[in-house]
Amino acid sequence: MLHRHPLLKLPWNGFHAQPVEKRAECFIDEGKLYHLIFTQQYSRTILEDLSNLATKIRKIAKSKSGMEFLQNQLCHKRAMLYFQQPSTRTFLSFYAACQILGLTPAEVRDSKTSSEVKGETPEDSVRTFSSFFDVIIMRHPEAGFAEKIAWLLSNTERPVPVINAGSGSDQHPTQALLDVYTLFRSFEDRDGIDGKTVVFCGDLKRGRTVRSLAMLLTNFQDVKLHFVAPPELQIEKDITDFLDARGNKYELASSLRSVVGIADAVYMTRIQDEWDTAGQTKKVDLAEFTFLPEFLSILHPNAVIMHPLPRRNEIPVEIDSDPRAIYWRQVRNGMWIRTALIATIFKRDRIIAEYFESHNG
Amino acid sequence: MLHRHPLLKLPWNGFHAQPVEKRAECFIDEGKLYHLIFTQQYSRTILEDLSNLATKIRKIAKSKSGMEFLQNQLCHKRAMLYFQQPSTRTFLSFYAACQILGLTPAEVRDSKTSSEVKGETPEDSVRTFSSFFDVIIMRHPEAGFAEKIAWLLSNTERPVPVINAGSGSDQHPTQALLDVYTLFRSFEDRDGIDGKTVVFCGDLKRGRTVRSLAMLLTNFQDVKLHFVAPPELQIEKDITDFLDARGNKYELASSLRSVVGIADAVYMTRIQDEWDTAGQTKKVDLAEFTFLPEFLSILHPNAVIMHPLPRRNEIPVEIDSDPRAIYWRQVRNGMWIRTALIATIFKRDRIIAEYFESHNG
Amino acid sequence: MLHRHPLLKLPWNGFHAQPVEKRAECFIDEGKLYHLIFTQQYSRTILEDLSNLATKIRKIAKSKSGMEFLQNQLCHKRAMLYFQQPSTRTFLSFYAACQILGLTPAEVRDSKTSSEVKGETPEDSVRTFSSFFDVIIMRHPEAGFAEKIAWLLSNTERPVPVINAGSGSDQHPTQALLDVYTLFRSFEDRDGIDGKTVVFCGDLKRGRTVRSLAMLLTNFQDVKLHFVAPPELQIEKDITDFLDARGNKYELASSLRSVVGIADAVYMTRIQDEWDTAGQTKKVDLAEFTFLPEFLSILHPNAVIMHPLPRRNEIPVEIDSDPRAIYWRQVRNGMWIRTALIATIFKRDRIIAEYFESHNG
Repeated sequence: MLHRHPLLKLPWNGFHAQPVEKRAECFIDEGKLYHLIFTQQYSRTILEDLSNLATKIRKIAKSKSGMEFLQNQLCHKRAMLYFQQPSTRTFLSFYAACQILGLTPAEVRDSKTSSEVKGETPEDSVRTFSSFFDVIIMRHPEAGFAEKIAWLLSNTERPVPVINAGSGSDQHPTQALLDVYTLFRSFEDRDGIDGKTVVFCGDLKRGRTVRSLAMLLTNFQDVKLHFVAPPELQIEKDITDFLDARGNKYELASSLRSVVGIADAVYMTRIQDEWDTAGQTKKVDLAEFTFLPEFLSILHPNAVIMHPLPRRNEIPVEIDSDPRAIYWRQVRNGMWIRTALIATIFKRDRIIAEYFESHNG
Repeated sequence: MLHRHPLLKLPWNGFHAQPVEKRAECFIDEGKLYHLIFTQQYSRTILEDLSNLATKIRKIAKSKSGMEFLQNQLCHKRAMLYFQQPSTRTFLSFYAACQILGLTPAEVRDSKTSSEVKGETPEDSVRTFSSFFDVIIMRHPEAGFAEKIAWLLSNTERPVPVINAGSGSDQHPTQALLDVYTLFRSFEDRDGIDGKTVVFCGDLKRGRTVRSLAMLLTNFQDVKLHFVAPPELQIEKDITDFLDARGNKYELASSLRSVVGIADAVYMTRIQDEWDTAGQTKKVDLAEFTFLPEFLSILHPNAVIMHPLPRRNEIPVEIDSDPRAIYWRQVRNGMWIRTALIATIFKRDRIIAEYFESHNG
Repeated sequence: MLHRHPLLKLPWNGFHAQPVEKRAECFIDEGKLYHLIFTQQYSRTILEDLSNLATKIRKIAKSKSGMEFLQNQLCHKRAMLYFQQPSTRTFLSFYAACQILGLTPAEVRDSKTSSEVKGETPEDSVRTFSSFFDVIIMRHPEAGFAEKIAWLLSNTERPVPVINAGSGSDQHPTQALLDVYTLFRSFEDRDGIDGKTVVFCGDLKRGRTVRSLAMLLTNFQDVKLHFVAPPELQIEKDITDFLDARGNKYELASSLRSVVGIADAVYMTRIQDEWDTAGQTKKVDLAEFTFLPEFLSILHPNAVIMHPLPRRNEIPVEIDSDPRAIYWRQVRNGMWIRTALIATIFKRDRIIAEYFESHNG
């Protein structure tokens, strides 16, 4: 049963006016994530617990009997994938995560064709739909909408958890999570994420994933960040201020070649020219922000190349066959970490860990 | 095996020309509903059996082992949700009902994009699609289409049951069913529906749910009905004629305030101004057909406030937290009664009742 | 584990330039179909093995315990139905096949709305999506696309099988398969397909199914083919050349009446006038290419009438009730043979055959 935080009783405007750290606390239940709305809800402990659980799930899922155990965990539950914005890969990743746990997924798109034309509020629509489900996985173009629904449902007789699968341009907490998990796996045999050097390259201003990951990495010790971007697409001041406040080391650069040799991970991103208002990025020399085939011989043998995908030319296809190119595995990590997240929200983490100990441990 | 009624052998025009009571008989098999097409198919016994089964299912579903028992009932079957008209909430309600019984649902929309452009008749399309399924749940803009398919399939080697999920503007038999079930639950500890007073308020002329529920309530003893509406949206003569013929008491009123105190249930509805041809409802004083917060103190402590949803301003949001406001629970009742209906069509009612007796009884 | 054929290491252009027989070999693994891309991949042995397995599956599925056995085979797997071209019946047929084997299906449509607008290649999109699945069932407007994906995935660390569910106008190998299986079932008690006479009637030039089936029938002994079509829609020379090369007997005719009496199977097709560029088929006397009710008395008592559907007037509705009209059963055969195909690809054929022997044998 959800222990309702007293702040939740505030009307929406009053609630939303609270600092994000306070709102984040309201969405925790018995020390575990209940609603997942903000990247700010993650602590080092939560990140490590989820990563450890994802790895256990991934190993259990290798056998048919393991998959049957996992599918039995939530076979009595239903998930609504409420996607008011197209995103096939996030959708499929959650869809697969549901299937692994036996959770029946149903997709809801274009609610506009439905009752909203009859004058129903979006809040009433989602509350009605929520009646049929046990968890809501929500993608919405409006910043703050997922949070509003989490607040609203928490004040009803039948709250169900809300997982933010991308709201507006600000928050996409499970994307950041899969990046952390990918680093976690990559450095599993090398003393973990602490002390590593991560190079971000490309459109660092508009890439939501870079901004989130940079912030999350402050949860670890002595991680060094390098931001490689053309001046007009460099990481923004709010992030460097955040890093300064946490005492985190970082450097800015304008050429990938200069730092590729010192990286433990190179995080490539696409120039998001769909946001250009006046062709700003037309003059950018893309070659400086491309992972050139010749860099493979400079890159450390244990380092990894990441990319949130979709990619364009910043990683040529011929790089794909290098074992350090892990962006395809990164996609699959998203599925495992989302599975771990859902299992945790439904408090199935302990039983899964126990199964792992007795079968794979 | 379906026992085919001799009337079904008539050609469609001949069949359809029969009175609805006769057609209703053809869609019964071994005393149980087979196809559910018309509200007229319900008797008091059927309504009570379905309601009792819904309550058993609802209680069984509270435990994981109970859900696993339910899901095992129809895990070997597939349902086609053939929705040629958008209706997210009816769709999701049936989708959830299928999942509870383990029935795999598949959605079919926009068959127009498919073979009908190549000159296939809609009847051939549905018959083809039906090959892959064990039950058809059908929403269609054309009145009578679901019935035609039920007649057609009954004349094939492989008939499958058809459930009408809304056809044209005339029939939506499972919506009426959920309203009856909600009254059934609300008055469970108060000697049932017999003798109760139900107040209908709002757009009673165009509200399909009000028309159906008013007719279904004649199956019970001494139910008193009050119809509160502006004159131009009052309940139509065919319904009052039907009530007169059955000897049912009713009264018309033009203000909710005058009758709210004597109600056991207040059934609010939205003014459906999307049907206005010349702004008829613009002059309506909506305040007279709104459940005002001040009515909460007049309303009987045991009474309930219902609404088929979506709502607009006829029920202000602040009413939602009153325990007598049960319109959200009404939504969920729709899921349970549809589950009971599907279980009954597949003749799983007895085994579910037996499980209930031995586990929850 | 997939044994990669050395040819697969060629770049795409080099691979695709190989003769189809050589490419077909690359998509076999341990003697079993892995990717199913071309009709040319079928041998008599494969056709018979799949047909025999389909019949076993069909019989096992008659009981609930049998269905539960089947559903347990692939309950730990997920299928992507990647349909970039609408085809409701092929989609539903595969969807049902997945459900029978317990395989969770997910539909992917309109990937254009997704990352391709951000400059992602279609190959990258499919590879990303494939991360979440264990098999891809693909319908695509572009000839060769399914093959390209099969080649691409075979060269990755995590190949998954690709089933071609229709690519461009050239290949639709599971449609041809269901026709063979329908003949297999129809002649099961009459010494099989060898030596039978099959009459094709209608639009033989543009009907992809006729072209494929005619070619596949050369795998059997002494099958006689009659092609009944208006001259401008007769079967094309590439097919008759293929039949000549294999020493297969065939005749051309321009009236169904003349050959209906000697047929073991009459395969009717629709005039596909949607391909007309200048109303070519307007002058065709459709009556000559219609299965007239009076033909029922000429048709051999053991013969069958087939049609790939959708039909128009070439088979009047009154024919439907004749037991020799098996086009509706043909639809359902498609579901069973596709189930057999998927089971074979996942190497579940032997365990299913063993279950059959011990339970139904």
